[in-house]
Amino acid sequence: MTTLLGVDIGGTNIKIAAVTRSGRVLARGVIETRPGDGAAQAFRRIHAAARTLAAGRGVTAVGIGCAGLIDAGRGVLRTSPNLAGWDGIPLAALARRYFSVPVVIENDATSAAFGESFVRGARGQNLVAITLGTGVGGGIVADGRVLRGVSGFGGEIGHMTVDPDGPRCRCGSRGCLEAYAGSYGIVAAARRAARKRRRRGVPRDVRAIIDGARARDSVCRDAIREAGEHLGIAVAMVLDVLNPSVVVLAGGVAGAFDLFEPHVRRAVAKHAFAQTAADASIERSRLGNDAAVVGAAMLAHASRARRRARRAGGRPGSRPA
Amino acid sequence: MTTLLGVDIGGTNIKIAAVTRSGRVLARGVIETRPGDGAAQAFRRIHAAARTLAAGRGVTAVGIGCAGLIDAGRGVLRTSPNLAGWDGIPLAALARRYFSVPVVIENDATSAAFGESFVRGARGQNLVAITLGTGVGGGIVADGRVLRGVSGFGGEIGHMTVDPDGPRCRCGSRGCLEAYAGSYGIVAAARRAARKRRRRGVPRDVRAIIDGARARDSVCRDAIREAGEHLGIAVAMVLDVLNPSVVVLAGGVAGAFDLFEPHVRRAVAKHAFAQTAADASIERSRLGNDAAVVGAAMLAHASRARRRARRAGGRPGSRPA
Repeated sequence: MTTLLGVDIGGTNIKIAAVTRSGRVLARGVIETRPGDGAAQAFRRIHAAARTLAAGRGVTAVGIGCAGLIDAGRGVLRTSPNLAGWDGIPLAALARRYFSVPVVIENDATSAAFGESFVRGARGQNLVAITLGTGVGGGIVADGRVLRGVSGFGGEIGHMTVDPDGPRCRCGSRGCLEAYAGSYGIVAAARRAARKRRRRGVPRDVRAIIDGARARDSVCRDAIREAGEHLGIAVAMVLDVLNPSVVVLAGGVAGAFDLFEPHVRRAVAKHAFAQTAADASIERSRLGNDAAVVGAAMLAHASRARRRARRAGGRPGSRPA
Repeated sequence: MTTLLGVDIGGTNIKIAAVTRSGRVLARGVIETRPGDGAAQAFRRIHAAARTLAAGRGVTAVGIGCAGLIDAGRGVLRTSPNLAGWDGIPLAALARRYFSVPVVIENDATSAAFGESFVRGARGQNLVAITLGTGVGGGIVADGRVLRGVSGFGGEIGHMTVDPDGPRCRCGSRGCLEAYAGSYGIVAAARRAARKRRRRGVPRDVRAIIDGARARDSVCRDAIREAGEHLGIAVAMVLDVLNPSVVVLAGGVAGAFDLFEPHVRRAVAKHAFAQTAADASIERSRLGNDAAVVGAAMLAHASRARRRARRAGGRPGSRPA
């Protein structure tokens, strides 16, 4: 029995999973990242944890989803704000030293998008995933292939300008989607709503805002509406530019999908073409926290299959006449 | 000697060109579309014109770029606002009847993007083309392949929402790029600028506005600035979502690239990530009016080459051991 290994490296934790070729998670585990100890240390601990998870099954390929800007072709982490000191590290080569099997590395949001695409089969071949957390990330699958762009930055949906006169974003620009729908953006929206309604005592985090909105608190509802509307404008643009069949909302905040949903749909109806809107289903994540590990594992599997096919096809003398 | 044939079907005219496998135009011609006479009539005339252009060279494949929503897989024009009565016509099959060679059909803006991509070689593998005319169209090449989306609507950059509170667009939505940078959007901007500056007598078309701006007329300059800035916001979003290495500005208005350029660049610097902005060169069209015919011809050539490779690889008994 063999298995694939999916690894999802974030600034705080590393998720590891043994995944079948059909994308089913057999076992999962979490270890701390401790970026300060260095990448080699991290892979030593990933390897130890993986041995337990694989439970005697041979690992045929390892897929790594990693926060940050990835050079997938060369297997290098170019830069990551959450993994200080790891810039420029050839993570794929490092991982290969421990696992002695093919390794692919991909951006975590792109891995998650590929995971969500994989589990949806044909319907998932044109899919966009938007990850709502502190920041807002994104990943794109077009015609079954991940869209990376020329240097791996493809899918930065969180920094689409949904209102050029909007609030300041962490990235330095103005009116980015993240400045509305990232958790700090939602908190800022609540603060604005409280000022407008002359209320003191603003909920301090997104959790409290979501709970407040469920309890029909007006300030919290205003904040969710503002986030949802701007998320909808971004989704509408994504629909018109990429014409996907599925848009997946993932990440912590997406747990409150039902609260955001009506505002997102209203804005999509208003701003997208009727046809692209009709083509796309807006859905919550199916894989949840497993999305990036499953996606990375399936990317590794696909890459290994392609390599084997190429090797078979390239054998001397086997070329068709 | 053989040649490829590129055809660009618009609402008014049909451009036809004999194109070499390296993308060079050997001969070009234009005939009227006369959509009212029907598609079969049009292809009869295209065939007659092509015979003259090909001048005895054998045509190996025909590529058709067509305004409207194209089902490239089935070779069908689904719908086109400028070709009344042609909805649902299987253009590829119709063309095959006249030419007896492989035919591909693609959206005209997507064809143009592929043409601009082709002539740039490796640098053009990740490219976005924005066509500025009455409307604003777009085409995307990602990793060397055209991005169509699930139903052929991919690349509708003209209807990205660059300002949710902006002016009304022809599509019914508000603040679309087209409402700023389409020719009617630029004229409307001049009208707004004239009102603000309490001036009577507004230039009636884009040509007059461009001429006025060159003559340093303040109202015309305001209009160009507004169009350029909003074009820049859209370009910034395209950079963050697709991370291309080239953005091509094409179409009639792009002839005044030098007037728009500083405003576009300023908005890109403000709204795009530094990295995606650094990755991309913003350029004017290299192929001009030939972009769609060259792109369509090269798409037909690539499709024919793929088919031949598949046929060779799929011969019984030729499969490698």
